[in-house]
Amino acid sequence: MIKTAIIGGSGYAGGELLRLLLGHPDVTVSAVTSRSHLGEYVYQVHPNLRKRTMLKFTDPDTMEPVDVLFLALPHGEVQQKIDFWAGKADRIIDLSADFRLRDPETYAKWYGAPHAAPEWLPKFVYGLPELHRAEISQACYVSGVGCNATAANLALLPLVKASLLDPDQPVIVELKVGSSEGGAGGSPASHHPERSHVVRTFSCFGHRHTGEVMQETGLRNISLTMTSVELVRGALATVHATAKPGLTMKTLWAAYREIVNENPFVRLVREQRGIYRVPEPKILTGTNYADLGFDYDAENGHLISICAIDNLMKGASGSAVQCMNLMLGLDEMHGLDFMGLHPI
Amino acid sequence: MIKTAIIGGSGYAGGELLRLLLGHPDVTVSAVTSRSHLGEYVYQVHPNLRKRTMLKFTDPDTMEPVDVLFLALPHGEVQQKIDFWAGKADRIIDLSADFRLRDPETYAKWYGAPHAAPEWLPKFVYGLPELHRAEISQACYVSGVGCNATAANLALLPLVKASLLDPDQPVIVELKVGSSEGGAGGSPASHHPERSHVVRTFSCFGHRHTGEVMQETGLRNISLTMTSVELVRGALATVHATAKPGLTMKTLWAAYREIVNENPFVRLVREQRGIYRVPEPKILTGTNYADLGFDYDAENGHLISICAIDNLMKGASGSAVQCMNLMLGLDEMHGLDFMGLHPI
Amino acid sequence: MIKTAIIGGSGYAGGELLRLLLGHPDVTVSAVTSRSHLGEYVYQVHPNLRKRTMLKFTDPDTMEPVDVLFLALPHGEVQQKIDFWAGKADRIIDLSADFRLRDPETYAKWYGAPHAAPEWLPKFVYGLPELHRAEISQACYVSGVGCNATAANLALLPLVKASLLDPDQPVIVELKVGSSEGGAGGSPASHHPERSHVVRTFSCFGHRHTGEVMQETGLRNISLTMTSVELVRGALATVHATAKPGLTMKTLWAAYREIVNENPFVRLVREQRGIYRVPEPKILTGTNYADLGFDYDAENGHLISICAIDNLMKGASGSAVQCMNLMLGLDEMHGLDFMGLHPI
Amino acid sequence: MIKTAIIGGSGYAGGELLRLLLGHPDVTVSAVTSRSHLGEYVYQVHPNLRKRTMLKFTDPDTMEPVDVLFLALPHGEVQQKIDFWAGKADRIIDLSADFRLRDPETYAKWYGAPHAAPEWLPKFVYGLPELHRAEISQACYVSGVGCNATAANLALLPLVKASLLDPDQPVIVELKVGSSEGGAGGSPASHHPERSHVVRTFSCFGHRHTGEVMQETGLRNISLTMTSVELVRGALATVHATAKPGLTMKTLWAAYREIVNENPFVRLVREQRGIYRVPEPKILTGTNYADLGFDYDAENGHLISICAIDNLMKGASGSAVQCMNLMLGLDEMHGLDFMGLHPI
Repeated sequence: MIKTAIIGGSGYAGGELLRLLLGHPDVTVSAVTSRSHLGEYVYQVHPNLRKRTMLKFTDPDTMEPVDVLFLALPHGEVQQKIDFWAGKADRIIDLSADFRLRDPETYAKWYGAPHAAPEWLPKFVYGLPELHRAEISQACYVSGVGCNATAANLALLPLVKASLLDPDQPVIVELKVGSSEGGAGGSPASHHPERSHVVRTFSCFGHRHTGEVMQETGLRNISLTMTSVELVRGALATVHATAKPGLTMKTLWAAYREIVNENPFVRLVREQRGIYRVPEPKILTGTNYADLGFDYDAENGHLISICAIDNLMKGASGSAVQCMNLMLGLDEMHGLDFMGLHPI
Repeated sequence: MIKTAIIGGSGYAGGELLRLLLGHPDVTVSAVTSRSHLGEYVYQVHPNLRKRTMLKFTDPDTMEPVDVLFLALPHGEVQQKIDFWAGKADRIIDLSADFRLRDPETYAKWYGAPHAAPEWLPKFVYGLPELHRAEISQACYVSGVGCNATAANLALLPLVKASLLDPDQPVIVELKVGSSEGGAGGSPASHHPERSHVVRTFSCFGHRHTGEVMQETGLRNISLTMTSVELVRGALATVHATAKPGLTMKTLWAAYREIVNENPFVRLVREQRGIYRVPEPKILTGTNYADLGFDYDAENGHLISICAIDNLMKGASGSAVQCMNLMLGLDEMHGLDFMGLHPI
Repeated sequence: MIKTAIIGGSGYAGGELLRLLLGHPDVTVSAVTSRSHLGEYVYQVHPNLRKRTMLKFTDPDTMEPVDVLFLALPHGEVQQKIDFWAGKADRIIDLSADFRLRDPETYAKWYGAPHAAPEWLPKFVYGLPELHRAEISQACYVSGVGCNATAANLALLPLVKASLLDPDQPVIVELKVGSSEGGAGGSPASHHPERSHVVRTFSCFGHRHTGEVMQETGLRNISLTMTSVELVRGALATVHATAKPGLTMKTLWAAYREIVNENPFVRLVREQRGIYRVPEPKILTGTNYADLGFDYDAENGHLISICAIDNLMKGASGSAVQCMNLMLGLDEMHGLDFMGLHPI
Repeated sequence: MIKTAIIGGSGYAGGELLRLLLGHPDVTVSAVTSRSHLGEYVYQVHPNLRKRTMLKFTDPDTMEPVDVLFLALPHGEVQQKIDFWAGKADRIIDLSADFRLRDPETYAKWYGAPHAAPEWLPKFVYGLPELHRAEISQACYVSGVGCNATAANLALLPLVKASLLDPDQPVIVELKVGSSEGGAGGSPASHHPERSHVVRTFSCFGHRHTGEVMQETGLRNISLTMTSVELVRGALATVHATAKPGLTMKTLWAAYREIVNENPFVRLVREQRGIYRVPEPKILTGTNYADLGFDYDAENGHLISICAIDNLMKGASGSAVQCMNLMLGLDEMHGLDFMGLHPI
């Protein structure tokens, strides 16, 4: 059995990681750390794990080495002591934003401060298997992914990979997201009476995940607009783009089908009947799927591509476990086979 | 025009008071105070009031005297300086819990500390017009009401007034309540991802409002069980009680009809068809109504009485304005004529 | 007092109309018709109106003439017998889609069938006061407005009126809408377990309201993308457009301020602090306000304009009553003074 | 591998059964039937199963024999042709209400019609493993359970098994339930704008599941009061009962702990800190757990026992699969190991 540990296990991504690893057939979890909940049973913070684990939160400073180390700390912390963590495991998956961007200047631009360990940036692979499966399989250090970036990157993947976009036209990504994106710590705006049933646009331009989307798609003229909706888990990215002249529906279908066929967690949802005709985040709750859909107005070249994910799974902990599977040569879907619920 | 002021206007009850007073045909609001939001426009905290008032939050220490003073401060603060407030207005309506209970020992029992101004307790009238209309009309000092106590008291009113209950049997009140009951300040448990869609029983026994229900109904063997549900505004009280032997449906109907006829804001909801057959809080959102319903199992004497309210209106600010109307000899419904919305 | 009647009063728009007219200081309602609920008390369908009206649904065929007639029938019905209705009142406000488009060919394009009374189309004025205040004041026949069209039209109003848009670039409107848009009749997709917490894109291109937006803004290259979210009432339109070269923030501010100053129900929401910094539909529930916001990326000319409304109020019944006020020379805000609730 | 089939697979319980069986290590599903969706892919109705099964709905009349047959038909249908079904499999688990009650007269009382196959009633075992584990292990025919009955029965189990209740006092069960209880077919009351955010008491007395609770607990003076809340999945039963004189907290703890220790899917939730101190349905979404809690007012003997479940899992399909495991001598938890999500 592979030995793993989770640093920063009291947050939402850490809790989901733990759930996935506890159900994984090939691994054990030897430690889950939390300074703020030190000594508490993990199930007191993540109540779904009651009767499933008697682990207590431990001190990160005293952890024993493991085979795979998951870091689920707040942005900015890992880069401060990445050498320390590298001494604890040969393989590291860091869910924070610290090692997602390859270029230190790009990092500084989006995060407002120089990177503390720029020499480590090239050692990491961007942890979205649908984009970097082969490299992840060979990697020792893998970053996490931004949840919104993931929805955008996967919505764009078929279009970018098949070079279907007019490169001179802007790409607009409208994201609708749930409240768990804000993490486990509350704020005045997340107080239930204020957050309930919002349709609240919190970022028109300049969301930090834009940097990840630019890096991974190669697109330069792209913007992300973020709107919170009434939902705990889930993100839906709606991409508006312009097709290269002459694009046909047949080519579009082929581009999406290729991506779906290559990736076990990507599905195409484009039905003519029934209730569930398009990608929707609600039925993805708890799953690692990314559901894709598209539409096209051939008259003016307006392309719409849609991707729905669970932000804590495919957009965070699910992709991280999928990366671990690849790094270890395991079946990519191990520990990630939850199908999701209907209704929910 | 009657001059009013609101002390503690940045909370939910204070905001609702202000909305009601701004729409009231007979009053003006000369000050709304808040220490934490001093100098901000009121509409920055209560965004519904944008373009309706240019009032800013002022300092309570510098307020000018008014005709009617509304106190919407946290529990425990008003009793510390009630003499100061009494110097600011001839008529005071205090929405906090400080002057709801008549007996200092009862106060100490439920609030865990001796009352700081027990000599003032007999000067206040309990501010629920359906129970004390005549006294309120003559009063200078009126207390607010507990929202849960109000739902329970009104559910019990027809039964108590007509003496239909077996006094030897316990009365069980099950309350289902929304998140605005917790007030404007957040807590870890009110963080949207944790609070969303709960059915969370936060108090089985011993809720402080029990004291108000005992005082106002005269019942001694009564308990309140509190469960939070997914709802911002609203409270539903379900009373389980035992009828005196021989009670008939006809007598029950008469008891409820009498209460409905005497009270403009009380309605009886007991339909045999349609979607809305019983009292429900959602259609009361923003209104001062209390909707009552009942059922009875004559075989074993099991009586169920139901009351739905908006906790911030009939359970707080609405009743307070209704009291002001009575104290000033105005039409009881002035400023409280919002009908509520369907659908919502 | 002005005599009014509502034809088709059992739906959501009809119910809201009735609520507004019952609270209006200058009008009476002499009839509310419904074939399917004939003879029932109105409050059995619209439970908020209990104890506020004893009106029963009557037969539309037997109604007496009135001063102002509101038609809230399903699309397609009014045009079949507009001459009959014109015999019942000198002033008609038709909330359906039948008389919104001026051009019969445009109507046929969007509604898939030729118009049954094309000679009546030029007699109607499009019923959005913010666009046609002067004409409505002189009109006998006023159409309703599409709720989504209204959010889009008002988001575009400052930009179009001040000619700030690059006419060669496409305009993309992303709409997020609540479940009451679907009307009072259910469908498999509106069954609560299936509709709850959706982020469901039901129309990428070709939504019928696009025709209204084209007509009212003069823009030809514009698309509406519709996404249902967890919300009963409310619509948020996010417009993505391209500015003419050289546009400054100062000019933008001026354009929005002008619209806000000219229109009592339009507000600008663009705060740097607090929870409510941008337009949001939830605090507009029950009000006739349209809240506007904007953002601008001067580097690439990307303009975002946002409009939030209550789809049943400013997007339907509220605008209709506002039109009636204008047609009758009354204060535009009469009967529409509800401020909305916080929290909700 | 064990061969199974599901009759009536387009409903919610059928869909959940299929999900569980597809993930079960020891079984295969050879048929899922539906007359109304005949020929459609199962994933078109249950969208979570896309890319997980290519099964199509088939005709129940043509199904081949299997090892274990699950019947998920509407109440009343199975009893009409139980002999036919018995010819299709040696082991049957019927999720409908048809074979839950042992006594034909009791059946007639609660379901308003005589049973069509009373001779079959004694052949069935009531399918709640926590009550009948040994019998189920030996059974060929097992009934399903009522979801509300299950929450009530499990809340009562520690009290009844340890004989802690005063038999002369009434037992009141307050149930708060989600919208999926109504099944996959919609109704006017389940239309999203009408159902959203309800606290709607739809049955004060006489709910059909009362018969199951009486049968399984032996209590005669017991009532169920049903209230719908905003929730898709989940049921919370709050039992109010009276203790035998002299009951101590220590005895209570022991009674609950015994039940928890004997039953892998029962957990005790009674924390002094943290957000999740009591049983709550939301974190049980998708799991087969039943979480129990209790409180006790020793002064007057008032006992409160709480049970939270997912109505479609422990209250329907989860218990059915658990029964199958027992009938086949498999590990009771096989196929039921989903831990649930936090947050959700």
